[in-house]
Amino acid sequence: MLKLIAEDFIKVEHIETVLPLYQELVTKTKEESACLAYELYHDLKDPGHFVFIEEWPDEAALTLHTKTDHFTRLVPLINQYTRAKGQFTRMSPLNEAFNLTSD
Amino acid sequence: MLKLIAEDFIKVEHIETVLPLYQELVTKTKEESACLAYELYHDLKDPGHFVFIEEWPDEAALTLHTKTDHFTRLVPLINQYTRAKGQFTRMSPLNEAFNLTSD
Repeated sequence: MLKLIAEDFIKVEHIETVLPLYQELVTKTKEESACLAYELYHDLKDPGHFVFIEEWPDEAALTLHTKTDHFTRLVPLINQYTRAKGQFTRMSPLNEAFNLTSD
Repeated sequence: MLKLIAEDFIKVEHIETVLPLYQELVTKTKEESACLAYELYHDLKDPGHFVFIEEWPDEAALTLHTKTDHFTRLVPLINQYTRAKGQFTRMSPLNEAFNLTSD
């Protein structure tokens, strides 16, 4: 399983503009058959910092996601309002990463 | 609900040492009644980067967690092996943060 943290840094004056775009992106992505989890969070300390926490079976599924109609339409629209480049952290669950058995 | 991303940066030569400490911390924390979610992930690109993704009802519940026997015993042990200070991002779900209704 691929766990992804995807972070956007939005100019605060454009937060109201991106909210409906984010809502549509979350709703449509959750409808994708390969989407295991996809939630969007807002940083309590940095109002322009939006954090997606996502789960995909693998990188291939994530790549397919980035080629969907909703992604290719909405993400460029959202990216017009960013103050900094997005940050992406790809991760594995601890047990998978180190072949550990959980108690 | 309080969503927390807590990031550790471990010296790679000590990863084997911290793994069992992390496993115990995850197991014992999941037993805490107020713990809504608590998972540990490993960065695919940075081998010393460990990322907790946690859910608590509120800040008070998180504070109680940091005062448990297992936290106060294990976290200082783990912190002996860090290469940089931990990073903590406190967040709200988008709908809560902006009083949005989901579709």
